[in-house]
Formats: sequence, structure tokens, C-alpha cells
Amino acid sequence: MTRNFINAGLGIVARSSKTIIASVDDDGFPNLKAMLQPREHDGLKVFYFTTNTHSMRVQQYLKNPKASIYFYDTRFFKGVMLRGKMEVLQDQDTKDRIWRDGDNMYYSLGVTDPGYCVLKFTALNGRMYENFKSCDFKV
Amino acid sequence: MTRNFINAGLGIVARSSKTIIASVDDDGFPNLKAMLQPREHDGLKVFYFTTNTHSMRVQQYLKNPKASIYFYDTRFFKGVMLRGKMEVLQDQDTKDRIWRDGDNMYYSLGVTDPGYCVLKFTALNGRMYENFKSCDFKV
Repeated sequence: MTRNFINAGLGIVARSSKTIIASVDDDGFPNLKAMLQPREHDGLKVFYFTTNTHSMRVQQYLKNPKASIYFYDTRFFKGVMLRGKMEVLQDQDTKDRIWRDGDNMYYSLGVTDPGYCVLKFTALNGRMYENFKSCDFKV
Repeated sequence: MTRNFINAGLGIVARSSKTIIASVDDDGFPNLKAMLQPREHDGLKVFYFTTNTHSMRVQQYLKNPKASIYFYDTRFFKGVMLRGKMEVLQDQDTKDRIWRDGDNMYYSLGVTDPGYCVLKFTALNGRMYENFKSCDFKV
């Protein structure tokens, strides 16, 4: 059963044009933002995103790593939420691996730009939304 | 300046095909879900959505009304997050006003179906995302 959810979830990730990421701010409010699709992912367990070191989301995750990420397929009204922890990675090995040609457009100093960092999300569990019903699953 | 953000935000709401809503669960994790567009809204201040009384999101908002809602324009990569409180309305007057023809498809007992309720979101403030920059504004 879990395998079916994983396969369905991977299909939604592949068809989603954006990832929505959520954090919790200092006042206890959920915050959310659309991101470019992940640079790398390992199934539905681990996802890597590029982002700006000075962004509000990074500052929130450094204080409180509790996170969710969400993908959805507009055409079929299916969505998958993954709930877990977000780490902010600034080591050069990770930054080198995740960097792509063209990123200079956002980070003018290149792969060593201190404004460039990597978000690593690790899922604890998931929730699938389909046909106006929802179901939890293990990741 | 605030008026410019309100106008830009209303444009994003109009072009967005879905609303993403966020809550905080019992374990302190942010949760998020795509919803159909709001049935009614008053500028960027108040938004009304229909939902299922027994849904997980409703149960979370009854315990903790802290919420955010997010709209985005995929084509121009613009987004607007509104941060505020979510109320769960079950009074018949509100349910009558928000009900639309065709809702029987989701709530077979009609406008008095106990499974049908209304979410009312009231914004405290907003954050605009545009051209990979972001800015807070008052609502």
C-alpha cells in the first residue's frame, strides 16, 4: 500500500511545476512560498533546493527546522504533502554538487557566493490528496 | 506603496488557479494543502472557502487558528502570502450565502449537510514575492 502512495507521489512530483515549502515563524504562524522544483531528490524521502542564504525562509529554518513541502498536479487535482525537517547546507561539497550552469544569474559570485546555499528536506511521513479525499502514508 | 502591493496582490489572486492554505499541527509542523479558489473575498483582507467539516485542516484550525494563504502566478513567477487567522464557520446564514449550485456533488445532503462548512480567513499582513525578491506589506 505504501509503495502505491510512493509511486503516485513521485508522479505528482514529476508533473508539478513548482514546490511549495512551509515553515513556522517566530510568532507561531505557518509561512509558505513557491520554489523552483528540487535539484535532486531521493524518492519521496530527501529533496534538495537552492536558495538565498539571506532569505526569510532560511532564517526561519535555522531556528525551527519543522517543515512541509507540497507538490500538486493541477490537471487532476491531486496533491502530496511531505512533513519533515529542513536543513540549511552551506558546505562547499554540497554547493558544488547542486550548482547548475546558469545559476550565476542569481548568484553573481558563482558557486562560492555566500548568498547561495542549499536546503535539504528529509520527510518523516506523507499525506496524499486525491478526489477530495486524503490518506496518510509512511515515507 | 501599500496600495501598489494590494493591487499587485489582487492581480495574483485573480490569475491563480488554486489557493494553498497552511496550518500548524499538534506537533508544531506546518501543514499545507491546495484548495479551490475562494468563493468570496474582500480585497486582500477577508477570504471565504468551502470545506469539509471533518477534514484534518478544520480540526487543526479549531485548535490553532494561526494560518497563511498563498496565491501564485506561475507564468510570471509572482506570489503573495497572506498571514492571519482562520475561523471555522458553521452558522446556517453563512453556509447559505457561500453555497453554490453544484455543491451537492460534494455535500449530498445539501446546504444543511453537517459535512459542509466555511473557512473564513482574515489577514494581518502580507508578503509579496516577485523577481526573486520579497517585501512585506500591510493589509
